[in-house]
Amino acid sequence: MMKELFPLPKVYGLLEPGPVVLVTTAREGRANIMTLSWHTMLEFEPPLVGCVISNGNFTFESLKITKECVINIPTVELSKKVVDCGNTSGRTVDKFREFVLTPVGASCVTAPLIDECYANLECKVVDENLVIKYNFFILEVVKAWIDPQMKHPQTIHHLGDGAFMVAGETIYLPSKMK
Amino acid sequence: MMKELFPLPKVYGLLEPGPVVLVTTAREGRANIMTLSWHTMLEFEPPLVGCVISNGNFTFESLKITKECVINIPTVELSKKVVDCGNTSGRTVDKFREFVLTPVGASCVTAPLIDECYANLECKVVDENLVIKYNFFILEVVKAWIDPQMKHPQTIHHLGDGAFMVAGETIYLPSKMK
Repeated sequence: MMKELFPLPKVYGLLEPGPVVLVTTAREGRANIMTLSWHTMLEFEPPLVGCVISNGNFTFESLKITKECVINIPTVELSKKVVDCGNTSGRTVDKFREFVLTPVGASCVTAPLIDECYANLECKVVDENLVIKYNFFILEVVKAWIDPQMKHPQTIHHLGDGAFMVAGETIYLPSKMK
Repeated sequence: MMKELFPLPKVYGLLEPGPVVLVTTAREGRANIMTLSWHTMLEFEPPLVGCVISNGNFTFESLKITKECVINIPTVELSKKVVDCGNTSGRTVDKFREFVLTPVGASCVTAPLIDECYANLECKVVDENLVIKYNFFILEVVKAWIDPQMKHPQTIHHLGDGAFMVAGETIYLPSKMK
C-alpha cells in the first residue's frame, strides 16, 4: 500500500475517535503485534499518546527494553485478523506469518509498520512514570504515515465481549474554539 | 429518563469505543459541563479512567478542589449541545440552562448527572500524579447508570476540526481469551 507522510499536528484526529489499534514491536529480530483499545491522546504537538500495555503481554517486555513501537490503525476489513492478534501471544506465534500481515520497515524505529493498516504512527516511549502502577506508557509519535486514498476509514471500536462498533457516517459541526 | 444501575465490571465497554463525553462538576452550588474526548480505561475493576482536563478549563479547578465528577455519555441526538458545551466556558455560561440540559442528583458525588445522556458514571479522583505534567486525572467510577432501553447507542466520536464519526453497525467476533 502506498503511504504518504501525515502531518504530526493532525495525528490526534486519528486516535481521538477511539479505534482499536495494532501495536507492533521488534526485539532481537523478532517482530510482534498486539491488539489494543486502551489509549488516549495527551498532547497535540508533539503528539503524545498514553496507552495501557499489560505486563502479562509479550509486547510489554519489548517496549520496556527497546522503548519503540508503531501504532497501526486497521479498518473493518482486517477485523478478523485484529481479533486473532488479540487471541494469541507473540511468545508462541509469529503473528505476521500466521495471520498473513506484511511488515514494512519504519523510518525512525526498529518496529515494523503493518502494510495493510491505513495509518501507521512510529512512536518512542517518553515517560514510564505510571508503568509500574497502571502499565501506562506515554509515547511520542515521531513520524506518521497514511494511505491517501482512505477518506472515510471504517475503523472498529471495541464494545467488550467480542462486539465491535464499526465507524458509521461523518457529520460536521464546526467549533468556534480552536 | 428512567435509568438503571449498570454493573461496574462492564463499564469499560462504554468508554473503550472512544465516545465524546460530557464531564459534569459542581462547586459552591454551581454545576458545569465540559466536552471531552481524551480519555482511556486504565483498569477493569474497580473501573479506572484516565482523562485529560486542561488547566485552562473551568472544570479543572472544580475537579482539583472537589475531586468528584460525572462522565455522561451522549448520543448523536445531542451532538449540537455537545459542541455548544465545548464552545463555551462555565466561567460565563450556565450550560445546563443555556443549552437546555437537565441536571439530576447523583448518589455518591455532588456533581449532577445529565438526564438526556444514555449513561452516567459517577467518579472520584484517585490519582493526581500526572496532573501537573499532562493535566491527566485518574478517576475511579464508583456508580454507573444506564438507560435500559438503549441497545445500540449512536455515540459520537471526534475526528478533529468539527467532524464527528457517528457509531455505525455492531459486529460480533468472539474472543477466545478473557
